Amino acid sequence: MKRIVTSILPALLFSICSTAQNNDSLVIKKISDEIMSHSTAYENLRYLCKKIGPRLSGSANAQKAVLATAKMLKDAGADTVYLQPCMVTHWVRGEKETGYIKLANGTIHKLNLCALGNSVATGKNGLQQSVIEIRNFDELDRLGEQVIKGKIVFYNFPMNPTYIGTFLAYRDCWDYRGYGPARAAKYGAVGVMLRSLASNIDEFPHTGTTIYNDSFPKIPAVAISTKDAEWLSLQLRKKMQLTAYFKTNCQLLEDAPSFNVIGEIRGSAFPREIISVGGHLDSWDLGEGAQDDGAGCVQGIEIIRALKAASIKPKRTIRAVMFMNEENGGKGGRAYLAAAKKNKEQHIFALESDAGGFTPRGFSLQMKDSEREKVMGWKKLFEDYGVYQLTSGGTGSDIEHLEELGTALAGLSPDSQRYFELHHAPNDVFEAVSERELNLGAVNMAAFVWLVSEYGL
Amino acid sequence: MKRIVTSILPALLFSICSTAQNNDSLVIKKISDEIMSHSTAYENLRYLCKKIGPRLSGSANAQKAVLATAKMLKDAGADTVYLQPCMVTHWVRGEKETGYIKLANGTIHKLNLCALGNSVATGKNGLQQSVIEIRNFDELDRLGEQVIKGKIVFYNFPMNPTYIGTFLAYRDCWDYRGYGPARAAKYGAVGVMLRSLASNIDEFPHTGTTIYNDSFPKIPAVAISTKDAEWLSLQLRKKMQLTAYFKTNCQLLEDAPSFNVIGEIRGSAFPREIISVGGHLDSWDLGEGAQDDGAGCVQGIEIIRALKAASIKPKRTIRAVMFMNEENGGKGGRAYLAAAKKNKEQHIFALESDAGGFTPRGFSLQMKDSEREKVMGWKKLFEDYGVYQLTSGGTGSDIEHLEELGTALAGLSPDSQRYFELHHAPNDVFEAVSERELNLGAVNMAAFVWLVSEYGL
Repeated sequence: MKRIVTSILPALLFSICSTAQNNDSLVIKKISDEIMSHSTAYENLRYLCKKIGPRLSGSANAQKAVLATAKMLKDAGADTVYLQPCMVTHWVRGEKETGYIKLANGTIHKLNLCALGNSVATGKNGLQQSVIEIRNFDELDRLGEQVIKGKIVFYNFPMNPTYIGTFLAYRDCWDYRGYGPARAAKYGAVGVMLRSLASNIDEFPHTGTTIYNDSFPKIPAVAISTKDAEWLSLQLRKKMQLTAYFKTNCQLLEDAPSFNVIGEIRGSAFPREIISVGGHLDSWDLGEGAQDDGAGCVQGIEIIRALKAASIKPKRTIRAVMFMNEENGGKGGRAYLAAAKKNKEQHIFALESDAGGFTPRGFSLQMKDSEREKVMGWKKLFEDYGVYQLTSGGTGSDIEHLEELGTALAGLSPDSQRYFELHHAPNDVFEAVSERELNLGAVNMAAFVWLVSEYGL
Repeated sequence: MKRIVTSILPALLFSICSTAQNNDSLVIKKISDEIMSHSTAYENLRYLCKKIGPRLSGSANAQKAVLATAKMLKDAGADTVYLQPCMVTHWVRGEKETGYIKLANGTIHKLNLCALGNSVATGKNGLQQSVIEIRNFDELDRLGEQVIKGKIVFYNFPMNPTYIGTFLAYRDCWDYRGYGPARAAKYGAVGVMLRSLASNIDEFPHTGTTIYNDSFPKIPAVAISTKDAEWLSLQLRKKMQLTAYFKTNCQLLEDAPSFNVIGEIRGSAFPREIISVGGHLDSWDLGEGAQDDGAGCVQGIEIIRALKAASIKPKRTIRAVMFMNEENGGKGGRAYLAAAKKNKEQHIFALESDAGGFTPRGFSLQMKDSEREKVMGWKKLFEDYGVYQLTSGGTGSDIEHLEELGTALAGLSPDSQRYFELHHAPNDVFEAVSERELNLGAVNMAAFVWLVSEYGL
């Protein structure tokens, strides 16, 4: 009998201490079962990708997506659905770009390329010049105007494959896309060809925003596929005489009116305390914006649907937000902040999913220590759903503006191994998304926002 | 100054305690960098999938794969490469199966189906009969001979989507494929149509072994796609009058001679202590055997290559093993045990990768408590490479025979969300494998076998 008592006592103590977690765990299981069995996220994503397609800010498709996701939020059972006006960057690619390398012997090697977002066009005759390969900015600065002037700069900075988290490698090469054209223009370059920011070698060009510097000329800039970059680099190492030609037809128009799309469940106890969750609705125009970031949008919608379907009433207000213009302006995120300030809203927590709908591995947290501690106390609850990594770090560029209000921020960290094979590229299509991975991300996000809605931070 | 001292002291203490882990961490980083930068695993997999193709035991392709992987091991720099003879199950599918549902109004619904592995054929006229849908074995037993006799049993047991680890759902429905035909035959069924063991709804039939019971007739058995299963179930719920027809042309031949393929690095200090690592070389015949289990094979080969390329000399012998006949006989694994016993080999550890080349999440361990404790001490080392889950559980059916020798066993546990969309199905092709995910699995496997080679268990 003694043995039984000694074995029961710790169990009793444990059960008292863990009642809250057990109840939480039951609610989260209910949410998870609802999502894993009845999610509409995948079908909503199919609609966004296949019925609408790419959703560049200011485009007709983006507007269709606004109406479509508002309807999805209504169908999901949101108490309120509304559109939040914002002006957005309106860049258009125009006719598909062309380009090639011409060797001295007359051989033409066609390039898989695309204009960088927000870049200027070459003009209708295109641009033909000799090419200087640049491995990094130090090399650019060393060579300077004497070598660079009048040339096309070919930035060939590969993503470092030895980083296990691919976002670290992306961080290292981001500047070449973001600032490479401006820095090359400083030395008189006439154009830029950028090795695509991709983790693998293939034929897809990856677009993305470049940011000009008003002190220097705006020069046309394209990304070429990693396969082309490898080939071009080889020709240059072999001292082949060559010129590059490319023609882009893009144009930056006046800002256009658009919307963030918002659907919410009103909190039952503290309706004024707002929790935002979602992703960005705009996408680049080359693929279908499936992983980036249709996934984050449909996960946000699914959280509303699942809570409603499972009859779970959050104490605080949960808002699914589809931000507009993340890719090439960030103006939806800023409009969201402006409205929050204007309406004196109390934003206690925001969670963004903008790293793909891959299998979830963690959350990155940007919040006060006391808040982080509270979240760490929920770690075990997430582990049942595959989330083990709660780390400090960036969260999401749409929600980061809310830091100004003291809002605690988090970003979903899905597995990153496949992301940079398709990021901003033509292969970011519906077929690249796994239904279960997408749903499992939604499960963890739902668990997180429900816990915050229940306990605050 | 005091402040500096107090902050240095703990650091010093920490550095003394963690020197071993730091050195280990440096070696593992070296291995990881080698694999993530220069792995040949993906190209070897491309060869297995695209130049050879499916590798059913006893087939000409399986023999080609034996020779090809032996060459890969030599190219990887293995000290010794040899073929270990084994007799293997030799089942052939024959001409592609056909089948349909015929409604009373004459409408024909064609089925996507395939014969189950090791099953008997229908005969050249095929099989046409009425269908009884069975949801589970309880229902089968309840209905019994009176209802079942003369019919085609349609097992419609879906994978449970609420399990986060999909292998749990697979475990629940495995028996319907493994024993369903035998159990239906017991009650006089003339054939079986099985809902494919798939986690999603699509058009692919998933094959896999069925195991007859000598006490009952061997009846023909096919898997139909989950989409067809849903459709058929709907017709039956609507009380539609219908019959099913299918024709299979498979045949179980005499066992055929084949080989396990082995390449090893001889241990520098304890060469007689053997560590085995790898996967199975045979595959089902519908796809290309990419995730199942070309991935495990090329990961095993890559470990040999990376250790050699990084000039790391393991103290104990590391053997990459490509087992033959895992899918429909398991005879390679048994031959490996028999040879180990005959040669009085000392097998201290075996690690199998047979759950796909997806991003690694953990290892399942089957070993003594003292060994498990030692492995748990390495947990932090794995976490840098994404492996957080060290659990108890099954490891790999090829290596489990080694338990008889007291060998500590482990299985790689990759993320399982996508596996059962392609397991044993036509879409298990090279394109379904991510290069970085595959390599990251190899990194963790290499780290594990290197640690065991350095410290034993």
